[in-house]
Amino acid sequence: MQIEIIAIGDEVVKGYTVNTNASYIAKRLQDLGMNSVRHTAVCDDEKSIKEVVEASLKRSDLLFVIGGLGPTEDDLTKEAVCGCMGKELVLYEDIFKGIQQYFAQSGRTTPLNNKKQAYFPEDAVILKNPNGTAPGCIVTSGAKQAVLLPGPPRELIPMVENEVIPYFEQNLDGVFETIDLKVFGIGESHLAEKLGEKLGVFEQVSVATYVGNNEIIVRIRAFGKNKEEAHTQAKIIEKEISLGLKEYIIGNNHKQLEENVVELLSAYGYTIATAESCTGGLLAGTLINCSGISEWLGESIVTYSNAAKMKYLDVQEETLRLYGAVSPQTAEEMARGIKKQAGVHIGLATTGIAGPDGGTEAKPVGTVYVGLAIGEACYTYHLQLDGSRQEIRQKAVKNVLYHLYRHLQKDSTCNS
Amino acid sequence: MQIEIIAIGDEVVKGYTVNTNASYIAKRLQDLGMNSVRHTAVCDDEKSIKEVVEASLKRSDLLFVIGGLGPTEDDLTKEAVCGCMGKELVLYEDIFKGIQQYFAQSGRTTPLNNKKQAYFPEDAVILKNPNGTAPGCIVTSGAKQAVLLPGPPRELIPMVENEVIPYFEQNLDGVFETIDLKVFGIGESHLAEKLGEKLGVFEQVSVATYVGNNEIIVRIRAFGKNKEEAHTQAKIIEKEISLGLKEYIIGNNHKQLEENVVELLSAYGYTIATAESCTGGLLAGTLINCSGISEWLGESIVTYSNAAKMKYLDVQEETLRLYGAVSPQTAEEMARGIKKQAGVHIGLATTGIAGPDGGTEAKPVGTVYVGLAIGEACYTYHLQLDGSRQEIRQKAVKNVLYHLYRHLQKDSTCNS
Repeated sequence: MQIEIIAIGDEVVKGYTVNTNASYIAKRLQDLGMNSVRHTAVCDDEKSIKEVVEASLKRSDLLFVIGGLGPTEDDLTKEAVCGCMGKELVLYEDIFKGIQQYFAQSGRTTPLNNKKQAYFPEDAVILKNPNGTAPGCIVTSGAKQAVLLPGPPRELIPMVENEVIPYFEQNLDGVFETIDLKVFGIGESHLAEKLGEKLGVFEQVSVATYVGNNEIIVRIRAFGKNKEEAHTQAKIIEKEISLGLKEYIIGNNHKQLEENVVELLSAYGYTIATAESCTGGLLAGTLINCSGISEWLGESIVTYSNAAKMKYLDVQEETLRLYGAVSPQTAEEMARGIKKQAGVHIGLATTGIAGPDGGTEAKPVGTVYVGLAIGEACYTYHLQLDGSRQEIRQKAVKNVLYHLYRHLQKDSTCNS
Repeated sequence: MQIEIIAIGDEVVKGYTVNTNASYIAKRLQDLGMNSVRHTAVCDDEKSIKEVVEASLKRSDLLFVIGGLGPTEDDLTKEAVCGCMGKELVLYEDIFKGIQQYFAQSGRTTPLNNKKQAYFPEDAVILKNPNGTAPGCIVTSGAKQAVLLPGPPRELIPMVENEVIPYFEQNLDGVFETIDLKVFGIGESHLAEKLGEKLGVFEQVSVATYVGNNEIIVRIRAFGKNKEEAHTQAKIIEKEISLGLKEYIIGNNHKQLEENVVELLSAYGYTIATAESCTGGLLAGTLINCSGISEWLGESIVTYSNAAKMKYLDVQEETLRLYGAVSPQTAEEMARGIKKQAGVHIGLATTGIAGPDGGTEAKPVGTVYVGLAIGEACYTYHLQLDGSRQEIRQKAVKNVLYHLYRHLQKDSTCNS
């Protein structure tokens, strides 16, 4: 089956809105084994829309047409699709009542324009939109189908998940399950070597690697007659691959590195505190993005100045003078200091040069030291990172969490 | 002039890579008064590429073709474009020498495949690529032109900025200057009222509004015979608009809200410290993203627990018991506490419920209190925010910085 995705809207074509809807739909269709072959974005004049829809219908079997379902005169998607598929637009009384209720709830009368949103191609399957006034629809004409969706992602995504995916799943011989393993601390070619013969496309399974956001993704896709079979199949491969990559895996499509860290903290009952210099709140911010962290993270300090390092963390003036603020010695004293100060099991510290200024020959921009005080021990790590100020800070946070995660996995005993 | 942007590559069509290149180019072209009318993304097989390029050349005058310039067999863009424009591929000796040097620098011999990257359409204008091995090119055939660019944004963006834009600027009757005013604390329709007759497209100037990331963008575009004229024209409109919107403007295309805040801190010589509960490091992280902040932000504390609020900020147990951690009273004590503790001019504090759990009827998820201790005074703000945990935290940070910015603008005297 040939699938195309068409986005309607000046704001996309002019570049003010990035077409994330197309990538989202394309990726989601892959889980059903359905491959899109083309994306198009055009302005919202009727001629352009008709031209694109007509050409796409000739080439392909199934179109996703995004946007142009609103109440204004610029919203012409339904008209254009009807024209190309030989359908009439008819009023759906139920939908109109729904729209009236939507407005009545907030004490308004329905604007005349919004009646337009209750017109749909004859025999269309209506797709509910609990997050807006524009329902979507699926139009069928012979062997050709068009799925019409609203443009705002907060309306489109739930509609795809709750209405569109189940609709197409019914008609499939089987389904795909995708597991993304997120991998860190290993290069792409070294990873490919480790995966060896598991990498590739096989009858029921495929394994591929992609470069993600400061991590590499190992994508496992498995096919099965039903969800359960696909899931079992994918899980078998995941287990095999995980064995060989154990020390590099930091998460999957459902769980980020920081969530895995918090899960282990909570499993062991460990409390944690952070002292940040160059990452300046990003480390705490990343941890605090995990709901439920409040039980384990009592406090965090950003000690940007030397004075603050001494005052809050008891870093020695001599250490700062002898080795500098950006040094393994300072990182260690910061980590031990915050651990003691906060009375927690684990103290984490960062100190480094995020740039763009402040680098020297001995300690160029991107030099970061991480301190990890856990139980009686304290480990320090030297990182040499590249990128912009923000990138260096983000990479530093990922590295800190990676090292903490590895320690938590290896050693579940830390007596504070 | 009709312009189309074509992206070549399976990873875009399958949805693993979002097509940010197309939006970037489209937006950048607008500055030259050049409007793209269509974006297409297709798989990297020769047939599809040829089909798309051929159809686009029929409709339009200028194509941007992105990707498929690499050394592998899948990289077929130049072949397809040559086929459609009636050109031969010829070896450019200079380019080949450059590629050989690129490899020699790292002690490698040039792989045989990479010779392919030195072939270009006859008479093409070559576009240098200091960030990779694939140069781009501009091909002209009669009234039609195609610009071929490499896919990775870190190669494409410098090539567009340094080679493509200057190339097209030469041939223009004039240029556009764009100023984006970022506006906060006012709704879109109220903003439209305030802008009144200034909103719209006029002979030399256009003014439009767009919803941005927790802010609204007022985009001013002015045309002039040269850069200077366009700039002057845009600045006149900016000044007129700014007068009426003064209290809502938080930044522009070159400067974020946090950079404006840091600029004022530095102008007045004010030091600042933050105490965060629900925003948990995001506020400090946002400020620290501004290079040069270290002089003004001595320290920041994340006091997530009640115990930490009492220990570090001297929040009274009675306050927490009587009003709760999420209350204006606690926000005030936190702000005053961090100000005193850190010995700074300004203390900022946040406390709230970011969710998804922890909400009550009286204080639902999204309830946030902000404390701003400045001089002898302390202001508190009640926010009611919506969205996910992360969205609520980000909106809270924006609100805090907005209120601080407004205070700094109004009052430059704060005696600590």
